[in-house]
Amino acid sequence: MKAAKNWNEDPAPLLRAGAGYELHGSDASATPGFAGTKTAGEAALAANATEVGNLQEKLFANSLYDDSRSILLVLQGMDSAGKGGIVKHVVGSVDPQGVMHASFKKPTPEELKHDFLWRIRKHVPTPGQIGVFDRSHYEDVLAGKVLNLAPADVIEERYRQINEFESELMAHGTTVVKVMLNISADEQKGRLAERLDRPDKYWKFNPDDIDSRELWNQYQDAYQAVFDKTSTTTAPWYVIPANRKWYARLAVQRLMMDALRNLNQDWPAATFDVEEQRARLDLT
Amino acid sequence: MKAAKNWNEDPAPLLRAGAGYELHGSDASATPGFAGTKTAGEAALAANATEVGNLQEKLFANSLYDDSRSILLVLQGMDSAGKGGIVKHVVGSVDPQGVMHASFKKPTPEELKHDFLWRIRKHVPTPGQIGVFDRSHYEDVLAGKVLNLAPADVIEERYRQINEFESELMAHGTTVVKVMLNISADEQKGRLAERLDRPDKYWKFNPDDIDSRELWNQYQDAYQAVFDKTSTTTAPWYVIPANRKWYARLAVQRLMMDALRNLNQDWPAATFDVEEQRARLDLT
Repeated sequence: MKAAKNWNEDPAPLLRAGAGYELHGSDASATPGFAGTKTAGEAALAANATEVGNLQEKLFANSLYDDSRSILLVLQGMDSAGKGGIVKHVVGSVDPQGVMHASFKKPTPEELKHDFLWRIRKHVPTPGQIGVFDRSHYEDVLAGKVLNLAPADVIEERYRQINEFESELMAHGTTVVKVMLNISADEQKGRLAERLDRPDKYWKFNPDDIDSRELWNQYQDAYQAVFDKTSTTTAPWYVIPANRKWYARLAVQRLMMDALRNLNQDWPAATFDVEEQRARLDLT
Repeated sequence: MKAAKNWNEDPAPLLRAGAGYELHGSDASATPGFAGTKTAGEAALAANATEVGNLQEKLFANSLYDDSRSILLVLQGMDSAGKGGIVKHVVGSVDPQGVMHASFKKPTPEELKHDFLWRIRKHVPTPGQIGVFDRSHYEDVLAGKVLNLAPADVIEERYRQINEFESELMAHGTTVVKVMLNISADEQKGRLAERLDRPDKYWKFNPDDIDSRELWNQYQDAYQAVFDKTSTTTAPWYVIPANRKWYARLAVQRLMMDALRNLNQDWPAATFDVEEQRARLDLT
């Protein structure tokens, strides 16, 4: 674990949105817990991938032997905050066999006929899997709130429903890791401009992104309410400074690695008689 | 495309199970089309990953603009043939956002109540996705046939149903790439022995694997019947010599890359007025 040396300090407590946390004024360019350069950060990300891969394989292997635990990584952030990059560069380093990815867009008419958690429940990770939500049930108290898509009392009730839903997941063995990728308004401007400058990036741009940007402060307030009401002891929010993509990736990798390590899993024991099977194999 | 130079010859025609193809006696240690060493093969695999990633991104991007095409990679082979390694090392090099992985085990009682294609249809790739089947509907004419899980006439009818099903997929824009990883009986013996020697590999071993091994010749015959009856012009089978894992991975990567290239996709054009959006962004 050479690479882990690059963390000067455990970043989790530094990134956790605890009681009294304030998003406003937080530095989106900081690198809490990591004093190294971009080059060192990228090297650490690559070096840690092997351990993350091994831990994921143990998670998967144990699910074949009645261990029903799983991980759910919830990714939120403003447009261009880097959610896709986390999926590609952090989640992408583990075996696709053990990943369940779900991306939540604007709800369809069919989805809108149901409770807001209906479409979400269909994608919670099964035993042994790392589930990844690119946007999530939190959109219903973010866009939902900012765009007044539901009455205020309905929005208010949703925070409680979300906490209950996540408690339920945890009771069934799912570790919930909630990450908000925090970019500054200036950084977003640059990233959206790049999408408009490069024809190979047009597909990532949507005029709605500018509508949302025009409501930047309202969205920041809605995120603050999310942290105030749903950053629980068992499923806290982590706010990751994300102006530096390399730092955000390294930090999310670390949170995922910690979640996996905390499962304390070993390789499953053989459920067959090894010698007996060896003897059978010899005869073939 | 430095790495592609390593292919001395397009491997697809060399690997395709065409009319008169015989599995019996084929060399599972050969490296058709590739004259390089293992080191060169591994370097080529790594070097090609970038192009595969770009092609996959185009596939995904275009699906957001009404291009409903997709790829389905069907992986078959005896136990320990390396299906999992293909998923991890070939499919694993592309963005998880664009991959739909499905693993088909022994059918559940619920699945057995339905037509054999019922559980398969639920996992066909949606537009823009690369679907991967680790085992597939072919199990129903492989294990199904060897273990007499259905009457002979039902098995016989399944080949036709399979061809019809795949034609249907292709008609809806899915390129079907069918791969059989071909290992020798000796190679399998060594690989299974390793699983019995290493406690971190016990979970990959199942006593059923030896039951299947005892029926090696019957399985080879069942594969031959599959090639004879379902290796069609539009969805041919490719039989990949797989004793050398590095070769099998490189060959499957090449088939996947060819399938993606054949879609001839460019980046989607902007569906908005770029200048207008730039002006809006400037004002924020």
